[in-house]
Amino acid sequence: MGEQVAQTILKLGGSVITVKEKASTPNTQAIRRLSKEISRCCCRPMIIVHGGGSFGHFVASKYKIKEGYKSPEQLLGFSKTRQNMVALNKLMVDALIMNRIPAASVQSSACFFTEEGRVSYVSLKPITGFLELKLVPVLYGDAVLDTKLGFTILSGDQIASNLAIALNSERIILGVDVDGLYTSDPKLDHEAELIGKISLRELRRMLAKIGGARTTDVTGGMLGKMVEMIPAIEKGIKVDIVNAKKPGRVYKALNNMNVLGTKLEL
Amino acid sequence: MGEQVAQTILKLGGSVITVKEKASTPNTQAIRRLSKEISRCCCRPMIIVHGGGSFGHFVASKYKIKEGYKSPEQLLGFSKTRQNMVALNKLMVDALIMNRIPAASVQSSACFFTEEGRVSYVSLKPITGFLELKLVPVLYGDAVLDTKLGFTILSGDQIASNLAIALNSERIILGVDVDGLYTSDPKLDHEAELIGKISLRELRRMLAKIGGARTTDVTGGMLGKMVEMIPAIEKGIKVDIVNAKKPGRVYKALNNMNVLGTKLEL
Repeated sequence: MGEQVAQTILKLGGSVITVKEKASTPNTQAIRRLSKEISRCCCRPMIIVHGGGSFGHFVASKYKIKEGYKSPEQLLGFSKTRQNMVALNKLMVDALIMNRIPAASVQSSACFFTEEGRVSYVSLKPITGFLELKLVPVLYGDAVLDTKLGFTILSGDQIASNLAIALNSERIILGVDVDGLYTSDPKLDHEAELIGKISLRELRRMLAKIGGARTTDVTGGMLGKMVEMIPAIEKGIKVDIVNAKKPGRVYKALNNMNVLGTKLEL
Repeated sequence: MGEQVAQTILKLGGSVITVKEKASTPNTQAIRRLSKEISRCCCRPMIIVHGGGSFGHFVASKYKIKEGYKSPEQLLGFSKTRQNMVALNKLMVDALIMNRIPAASVQSSACFFTEEGRVSYVSLKPITGFLELKLVPVLYGDAVLDTKLGFTILSGDQIASNLAIALNSERIILGVDVDGLYTSDPKLDHEAELIGKISLRELRRMLAKIGGARTTDVTGGMLGKMVEMIPAIEKGIKVDIVNAKKPGRVYKALNNMNVLGTKLEL
């Protein structure tokens, strides 16, 4: 980029902007509210990345897209998964435009390529180009081309972390459907405590401890997200986790106000 | 690409797949019929490129997107133009998928970059990657980033010609709203004659003759298309013009059957 301004990457979870249990059902209220919260903040340059939620999960599972190309029957499923994500992204970007944010949809699968599920090549040109014009690029978890697997699923979390590193962003705000990172799964354990702040060293220790229990993620689904964030934290990028389902939290995080959540720092 | 198979690029005019006079109105019947015609042919690998028609024209004109970036007020217009094209492309790709064609939408503005309106950089990676998996990439005329203008409009015709050259395609089929290239505008001149076949030399002579009358395009809007096709024809790529509004013409052209239209050849 010509100018190096501190960027914020806002990741909005698929479980926030869709109804998780119902195939291809948007949480229209959340999409509208979040667009409004984003429009009220002044922390551009900003990049938004969103997950797939029920737009991605059902169809991708049905055709085993994440596992890679095994039979021609999957091709239609690959097409359908991508179209579903285009549909969700369109809802998100349209809502942002309604709130006068000059959002620029960026098809992740046109820019991100993986090798066995890990990003191996990124075409940053459209993203940096849009940022230079003061547009807000909006990317999303997507079905992408993979040099080894043929195709696979690339998560919004990996995109956010990868972009933050590539663009030397200041921070990532992870908008999720819980208040932050807990000492154990708050949905199962009454004594689970929200962690207000955690250093990379402490986070690594925590992940190592619960790593053996990977299949039963004791953090309540946050483990995978944390693993994705580590490379960004290592580069000095701050990661703030907030509950995007609760009105005002994303707004406060974007504006650097005091907000309930978890801060991950080097 | 790993394998070099003769490709066909099918360009579908915006005036064919949309209702030209009404803003953002698809010609759903044409989209469905053409998807069916494409599904009945076996000429893959294939790339489809479509125009914007009434999805692109109205909003792009309103915000003067083609003229380039002049004021911040245009940014929302740029966003809206791109979203409109995403909407039209979604209709086209969904119809192809309905007909069991594994179509892969490719956001042109994520891959094509221009300098003063002419393609200066293309990221072919998603397009060749999709082709290798035997998917059918579907691109479209779009609002794109321009190194000199900030942004501008890139036509589907220029994309088709550019891709054909870059990928060494065998031919381009131009599906338009007239029967082919005429000796004069068939809508105005009763004595206009359809040209069945024309060589590059004859085409150049014809364009030179009518070049002076550019503002009143005597070919009935075909002049710009022809100018875009010349670089492809020079490379030995065949260009077939057919009327995509007439059922069966695109199907016949795709299958190399005898069909009314104009053949442009070296």
